[in-house]
Amino acid sequence: MARATLDLETHASQLEAAIESIWFRNLVTALIIVNAIILGILTYQNRLPGTLVTALNAADRAITYIFAVEILLKLTVYRFQFFRSGWNWFDFIVVGISILPGSEAFSVLRALRVLRVLRLLHVVPMMKRITEALLKALPGMGAIVAVLALLTYVYAVMATDLYGDTDNEEVLQLFGDLPSSAFSLFQVMTMDGWRFEVVQKVIDDGHPWAWLFFMTFIFIASFAVLNLFIALVVEALAAEQKAATEELLEDIEEDVEHAGEDRDEMLKLLSSIRTEMAELRAALTQQDRPEDST
Amino acid sequence: MARATLDLETHASQLEAAIESIWFRNLVTALIIVNAIILGILTYQNRLPGTLVTALNAADRAITYIFAVEILLKLTVYRFQFFRSGWNWFDFIVVGISILPGSEAFSVLRALRVLRVLRLLHVVPMMKRITEALLKALPGMGAIVAVLALLTYVYAVMATDLYGDTDNEEVLQLFGDLPSSAFSLFQVMTMDGWRFEVVQKVIDDGHPWAWLFFMTFIFIASFAVLNLFIALVVEALAAEQKAATEELLEDIEEDVEHAGEDRDEMLKLLSSIRTEMAELRAALTQQDRPEDST
Amino acid sequence: MARATLDLETHASQLEAAIESIWFRNLVTALIIVNAIILGILTYQNRLPGTLVTALNAADRAITYIFAVEILLKLTVYRFQFFRSGWNWFDFIVVGISILPGSEAFSVLRALRVLRVLRLLHVVPMMKRITEALLKALPGMGAIVAVLALLTYVYAVMATDLYGDTDNEEVLQLFGDLPSSAFSLFQVMTMDGWRFEVVQKVIDDGHPWAWLFFMTFIFIASFAVLNLFIALVVEALAAEQKAATEELLEDIEEDVEHAGEDRDEMLKLLSSIRTEMAELRAALTQQDRPEDST
Amino acid sequence: MARATLDLETHASQLEAAIESIWFRNLVTALIIVNAIILGILTYQNRLPGTLVTALNAADRAITYIFAVEILLKLTVYRFQFFRSGWNWFDFIVVGISILPGSEAFSVLRALRVLRVLRLLHVVPMMKRITEALLKALPGMGAIVAVLALLTYVYAVMATDLYGDTDNEEVLQLFGDLPSSAFSLFQVMTMDGWRFEVVQKVIDDGHPWAWLFFMTFIFIASFAVLNLFIALVVEALAAEQKAATEELLEDIEEDVEHAGEDRDEMLKLLSSIRTEMAELRAALTQQDRPEDST
Repeated sequence: MARATLDLETHASQLEAAIESIWFRNLVTALIIVNAIILGILTYQNRLPGTLVTALNAADRAITYIFAVEILLKLTVYRFQFFRSGWNWFDFIVVGISILPGSEAFSVLRALRVLRVLRLLHVVPMMKRITEALLKALPGMGAIVAVLALLTYVYAVMATDLYGDTDNEEVLQLFGDLPSSAFSLFQVMTMDGWRFEVVQKVIDDGHPWAWLFFMTFIFIASFAVLNLFIALVVEALAAEQKAATEELLEDIEEDVEHAGEDRDEMLKLLSSIRTEMAELRAALTQQDRPEDST
Repeated sequence: MARATLDLETHASQLEAAIESIWFRNLVTALIIVNAIILGILTYQNRLPGTLVTALNAADRAITYIFAVEILLKLTVYRFQFFRSGWNWFDFIVVGISILPGSEAFSVLRALRVLRVLRLLHVVPMMKRITEALLKALPGMGAIVAVLALLTYVYAVMATDLYGDTDNEEVLQLFGDLPSSAFSLFQVMTMDGWRFEVVQKVIDDGHPWAWLFFMTFIFIASFAVLNLFIALVVEALAAEQKAATEELLEDIEEDVEHAGEDRDEMLKLLSSIRTEMAELRAALTQQDRPEDST
Repeated sequence: MARATLDLETHASQLEAAIESIWFRNLVTALIIVNAIILGILTYQNRLPGTLVTALNAADRAITYIFAVEILLKLTVYRFQFFRSGWNWFDFIVVGISILPGSEAFSVLRALRVLRVLRLLHVVPMMKRITEALLKALPGMGAIVAVLALLTYVYAVMATDLYGDTDNEEVLQLFGDLPSSAFSLFQVMTMDGWRFEVVQKVIDDGHPWAWLFFMTFIFIASFAVLNLFIALVVEALAAEQKAATEELLEDIEEDVEHAGEDRDEMLKLLSSIRTEMAELRAALTQQDRPEDST
Repeated sequence: MARATLDLETHASQLEAAIESIWFRNLVTALIIVNAIILGILTYQNRLPGTLVTALNAADRAITYIFAVEILLKLTVYRFQFFRSGWNWFDFIVVGISILPGSEAFSVLRALRVLRVLRLLHVVPMMKRITEALLKALPGMGAIVAVLALLTYVYAVMATDLYGDTDNEEVLQLFGDLPSSAFSLFQVMTMDGWRFEVVQKVIDDGHPWAWLFFMTFIFIASFAVLNLFIALVVEALAAEQKAATEELLEDIEEDVEHAGEDRDEMLKLLSSIRTEMAELRAALTQQDRPEDST
């Protein structure tokens, strides 16, 4: 029984070494890329011969099961530690979606298959570095995004109250209810066709002062977005800056330390000279006195 | 009478403590959020049962009165100090708008009710920090915004003079009078549909050189906006920089101070050695002379 | 005769003092603003009573002559030095345009009257600072703008050759000749309606690969514009940086100088101690020898 | 025979000096500009007299052959080293395209003639500096561009699966196959007409939740582009920063070195004083003892 446990542990550690090895990662990377290509080709399924489509679907299915086995292996090795990593959750969900019974039936779930390709984002080290840098920059945006969302909500409520009570089909589409208003205000914020697709239609619907409403929104939102952007730049640069300053400080610190050691040595030397001088003087005065006594 | 004043003062300070407490702020925050949700639901009032609309309107009214009482309490505690804070003015106005007699009658004033939700911007500390940072960045934009406004005015006058005297309905809408021209130039500045919605229509109205007019405007305005942006980035970074430099300087200053103290000590030691040396020499030469005389 | 020259010189210096005084600048500022308002109102001339239009035109004329007198005064005082300042050239031209005989006859020249309002850009000190900062940033853009212009030219020649030889009216308007192509490519660069207003029309005109042509242009141009922008930010920041670094260096330099002076003093002290020591030793050995000889 | 080789070598080095001389570069620059103007005029060939077109085409041909000779000369001088420079490859290809037999027959190849004008990018030193700076910034974008491309691919596959299976002509044009979907998503990324030209058409085709799909894409893509941009700014600034820090460090290092030399001298002086002091003492005590013994 003890031997069995030992065997299991040995197997587990061998398995872990295999899972974490470069050839395993390269294999997974290759499978993801093949899968991406297959799913790309499958978008042409209506124009392809049926047998090819069947074959490609089978290959996709096979790769999905390989990914499922990969996750099961990882679960075996890491147990509950597996779920500590956000990336593992990601793999678990995107592979799970495709294995769910009946997932083939819903076109949305079938379309989500391709999310598996996003696994590249953390399997390829270079992409993982970038993705994690992007994710790390997210929290710094939190507060300004909250302010922007609040602003959009307030403007959306006002726009629905002011412009939504109309028979004009186009204006109804823009500001007929709260989500539409928020969506239209987001469009205005991106400055895409804001004048003739949005503002002018509201003005023509009997709200001659609507330009003022939207101009204030454009100014406030642009200003907030601009500052969001500046905050991110400044944050990124301040980190760089700090690193540079610290490096500079370390260098100076070293010099200063060296100078301090030198000064300590000098002070020691000076003290010893002084002591010797005092002893010398004492010796001389001692030498004098007997002479005086003669 | 004196006791009454004392009581009042005690009450006032108790009241102040209550108003400034965290649970009071959390209560206000919660009320604002509830109010935001109510006003959001009320945008669907035409599709909701009448009783629900009445209830929600009553709830909105109740919350407004609670906010009014909150402001009255603050006025009692802080008296005229209350109006020193811009945020208090803001609260006073947005709550006042909703209480004004007849405010229900005007759809615009009713729509402005939702501005109360913007109170979150200073009640939630995280948002307050961001909002005040945004407001602090505003004055730095003043001069460039003034230059941009002047530029837009001059171009708007020129555009109205050059292109506004026409029978073409579309061009009249764009450049028929001064405010329309300024609005159209703002549209050009945001680069939204500038070519086919604006410039091409003017060209087709018999002004083949209009593209030159608008290109110069686009270039000058983009350049000014770009510099406005750069100025904000540089300002924000220079502050960061200054902080970093100061920290660096402080560290070096400390080292330098330490080195200076060491050098002072050394100099003192050296001086004393020199003095002793001189005294010793004097003693020796004095000692010699009598010996010579013997 | 000499007295007359003296008088003239005294008058000239009094005149200069007057021209450079703050009240004179404020007067000019006020006149420009009044002029701006008059020209703004005159854009409504078709809807205003004729007498008011006449009066406003007379006032505009009067202000123009006052500006002309101002320039003549400056010419009297500064002589040829007047033309050393770009701003004086600017004033000379924008005022000159309005005084030109027959300028009233041409609508374009009449529209250019409002350029006089741009004199505010250098008369108001705050605006002058900004405007000169903007002008100073221009040369730094030179090289990248030249690269962008060359790129646009090359793409415009190619687009005209490839897409301009067609009967499709819309495509002819876009790429029928070289200036049109350059203008359309500028539109694509600003990303305004680039797909359905430009690229799709060319594709539909029998050029299925046109998207590749325009995508490369968008990528290269966006990348160049981005780098233009980055260059400006970096330049502005490097100047800030340099100032900060220099300040830092000055502070350290001072400390270093102080330390150097201390060390010089120490070295002097040490040398003198050593000399005295040597002398002392010499004295002692001299003192010894006679004793030995005894 | 040896003399012939010597002659050849002398000729080669003379040739190299000629090729690298400023007048040669100026000549090439002038020829490129003339060529650019000729090709610009030739875009009007349908409206020009036939003889002028023939003459201009001949001139273009002549300049092309001069460029070909220039490249042959360089090949003679530098031999295989010629192909070490990317710019030489560029020249070789753009000139080669025009000389290819039959190149006149294909309108695409004839349109590519104008690429020769891009030789200015490395012949004019100022432009070469900019162009190489731009090329150097490219690799830094690699990883984020890869992430963006992956993201666009995944979204394009999903969009084709979800929205491409329709009879609506407009939606088919947008998302009918994989390349169309990628192109439409690129359009959405540039925020050009994203709402009414893309998203609304998909929504109206029976996909009421399409806005969610595109909003997530806009947010993720904008965020990635923003970070791409920030990375470039930070990289450029960090280099500046490093240079500034290094300059600062060099200055301090020099001071420190100087101080170190001073301290070394001091330490040497102090040591020698101490040694002398010790010797002096030794001498004195030696001098004492015999005296004691007397």
